Amino acid sequence: MMSRPSIVVFDAYGTLLDVQSVLKEAMRAFGESAGAIVNLWRTKQLEYSWLRTMISAYVDFDQVSRDALTFAVAAHGISIDDANRQRLLDSWFRPLPFPDVAGALSTLQRIGLPLAILSNGSPAMLQLALEHSGLRDSFDHVLSADTVRHFKPDPAVYRIIQDRLGIAAGETLFVSSNGFDVVGAKAYGFKVCRINRDKRPLDELGLRPDFEIGSMKELPEILG
Amino acid sequence: MMSRPSIVVFDAYGTLLDVQSVLKEAMRAFGESAGAIVNLWRTKQLEYSWLRTMISAYVDFDQVSRDALTFAVAAHGISIDDANRQRLLDSWFRPLPFPDVAGALSTLQRIGLPLAILSNGSPAMLQLALEHSGLRDSFDHVLSADTVRHFKPDPAVYRIIQDRLGIAAGETLFVSSNGFDVVGAKAYGFKVCRINRDKRPLDELGLRPDFEIGSMKELPEILG
Repeated sequence: MMSRPSIVVFDAYGTLLDVQSVLKEAMRAFGESAGAIVNLWRTKQLEYSWLRTMISAYVDFDQVSRDALTFAVAAHGISIDDANRQRLLDSWFRPLPFPDVAGALSTLQRIGLPLAILSNGSPAMLQLALEHSGLRDSFDHVLSADTVRHFKPDPAVYRIIQDRLGIAAGETLFVSSNGFDVVGAKAYGFKVCRINRDKRPLDELGLRPDFEIGSMKELPEILG
Repeated sequence: MMSRPSIVVFDAYGTLLDVQSVLKEAMRAFGESAGAIVNLWRTKQLEYSWLRTMISAYVDFDQVSRDALTFAVAAHGISIDDANRQRLLDSWFRPLPFPDVAGALSTLQRIGLPLAILSNGSPAMLQLALEHSGLRDSFDHVLSADTVRHFKPDPAVYRIIQDRLGIAAGETLFVSSNGFDVVGAKAYGFKVCRINRDKRPLDELGLRPDFEIGSMKELPEILG
């Protein structure tokens, strides 16, 4: 249990939205290589966002996602036609929420806590994904890294909460399933809750979250 | 062909030194999972170096390498004893050079060009690896990212060449097999040659090297 935060801020992709949603469409395009290609796609998507931040060569997460798919497909020695490529991207841009998300958000809304999203996704991606998943109305604020043209875990992104909403780091509970994001948010100074649905080890980056839960259903308990 | 550079600067791990050298020891420890574990180890090693740079939580590459191994093993649900862990790390710290390296370096030395290494590896790692591989005497300068406590592709690392040796970016030919490093060096302003031994696609980060070769044997040709 923690003292009541002023806001609960969620990561989107991998935390609220299942990045494996694209797997069905990938199986149609790639058959048995689908799992490996989707994993490489996701790995490169994240890596490119970090590398572009490091070398000051920002493009938005739409473009990063397209570029990562291009690499993942080429690395497997596969070529896909434009129609299949577009179907995969369409599927990526319309991810499904994890099944524990909607109920937990309703409970938090009843408690009366302001809820926000802070995502590496572009505003256009986030709008599409939240409308498609039916989650849009659950959030008071949807904030994108695009505002500062850096990607998480650069502290400039976490600072958006302070700069836009005037809420101090120590008053913010940040919720993420992504190891890099858990560690980055903790380094920045947020209170951090990791959702670890698959019981995976945390990345070894020298910092631990304040709380760890296996399902979003447990989040109200932390808030008392 | 390019106009004669003032220096040729090499990346070390993955460019001169084969990061797959550890595979033999990994097969002994992990059997058929060895390939997947070594790949995840290398992926996390790079990712942790970038993430620690982004969140200003530098530790040297020795520690990053240990941490990445801890994660890779845990992610596969395997536990290894201290002796096996140490054997793996010892093997990682003593990589073998690629077979095309020694001959090409000799040719470049005969041409009379100053040769340097600029690596994310710590000074201790680099000394051990270069002595073990017999390459130490080929280089006039061995420079480590540890000097600036950032990792490539942060421009602070590439700037070491200017700051330590007084050689401008445009006068430097930088040679690497790592996509992030090729792109980072190009973004910084070096002339860049990619060595692509395995005919792999380049990472999609919006920048291309000035030259691409399949073996270090072709490097003297670029220099005329």
